[in-house]
Amino acid sequence: MKIDVLTLFPEMFSPVEHSILGKAQEKGLIDITYHNFRENAEKSRHVDDEPYGGGQGMLLRAQPIFDTIKKIPSKSPRILLLDPAGRKFDQSYAEELAQQEELIFICGHYEGYDERIKSLVTDEISLGDFVLTGGELAAMTIIDATVRLIPDVIGKEVSHQDDSFSSGLLEYPQYTRPYNFRGMMVPDVLMSGHHENIRLWRLEQSLRKTLERRPDLLKDRSMTEEEEKILNKIQAESESK
Amino acid sequence: MKIDVLTLFPEMFSPVEHSILGKAQEKGLIDITYHNFRENAEKSRHVDDEPYGGGQGMLLRAQPIFDTIKKIPSKSPRILLLDPAGRKFDQSYAEELAQQEELIFICGHYEGYDERIKSLVTDEISLGDFVLTGGELAAMTIIDATVRLIPDVIGKEVSHQDDSFSSGLLEYPQYTRPYNFRGMMVPDVLMSGHHENIRLWRLEQSLRKTLERRPDLLKDRSMTEEEEKILNKIQAESESK
Repeated sequence: MKIDVLTLFPEMFSPVEHSILGKAQEKGLIDITYHNFRENAEKSRHVDDEPYGGGQGMLLRAQPIFDTIKKIPSKSPRILLLDPAGRKFDQSYAEELAQQEELIFICGHYEGYDERIKSLVTDEISLGDFVLTGGELAAMTIIDATVRLIPDVIGKEVSHQDDSFSSGLLEYPQYTRPYNFRGMMVPDVLMSGHHENIRLWRLEQSLRKTLERRPDLLKDRSMTEEEEKILNKIQAESESK
Repeated sequence: MKIDVLTLFPEMFSPVEHSILGKAQEKGLIDITYHNFRENAEKSRHVDDEPYGGGQGMLLRAQPIFDTIKKIPSKSPRILLLDPAGRKFDQSYAEELAQQEELIFICGHYEGYDERIKSLVTDEISLGDFVLTGGELAAMTIIDATVRLIPDVIGKEVSHQDDSFSSGLLEYPQYTRPYNFRGMMVPDVLMSGHHENIRLWRLEQSLRKTLERRPDLLKDRSMTEEEEKILNKIQAESESK
């Protein structure tokens, strides 16, 4: 996957060189280039200006963004503009982006950008309902969640199967050594060696947690007969309280 | 504000030294310390182990986290564990955290962590419905959105007033020079100099965008009489189409 990032702060992207993303670059699975669009500004590095009609803050000008994108060799890239009013990023969006061959991220900074920049983009994308000082951390986060889904980036592909969201349920509690940690014990079933009981306990814990914290995730999910049975049991319990 | 971060990858936090967060540290408004909990592992840097009951991946052990937190001098910190099953981070959560004097972030890595770590934390916090290779980028994003709300971190406090979400509406389109950018013009009203017309146009654009993209934001919001009137007009228009 080819990734291009338009930013005024390329040095902020050092986390991408670490950890799994760094290894994916070493293996040649992704190729990331940073473009400081200040270098393509027509007049003496002029990247921002005051809003027409008045108001606080400075807006990114259209020209440096347009001319930087024009210089990036690409066939049919997804061009993503980070904006809190955009489509919300989630796991299925990450899976969609992981299928692409070329992604271009435009990171805003300052208080906003000229609306005409939007005529360039395929995706207005939001990390969530909050405001950041710039798009850089959002872009890195989206790149991280996306790139880890590309085959061979994470050692074993199986690692995804246990992810939260990939099963549509929240994850069950997990424990590692020691059995007794300062008076807190591991649940007996996990020590039993009985694989079927462990599987059922984990499924029930996942369903309980999802029902309690994120009932919205259960709405659109098609349930197995086994899951229906466990859910009915949980709901009967809570009604009898 | 005092911020402590537990992480196996302190070097990933270099973006925090840049931009507005770097300046907030220089001004003494925030004080961030990174703790590599590997240094507090009892046995030869032993931070992770296999899950009881079987399964893929390695889990963070409880001991290094417990002993690192014990060493941090603090009074009544919020202790935040990054977890996709946690409470979803948003602008009101950022405003809540910006009031605190001490925040401690626990960044997971690997495939999960020992459930007993949760007995330490005040907040399980999620950046969104997606899976990251680690908690570091999520922690930085939350720190960025929170710290910028602390008084004096951003130059003028007024800058927040125009933020998306702080008004409960998405932002109206903005434009800066030139008036004619490659055939795309700025809307005439913004060139008129008529402040009241500009204010009304912006309010209508915000309402239109919010209604179209995020009707959920309008549900719990108390509207002014003026906003009600504009919304009724927009809805009448779309019904007559």
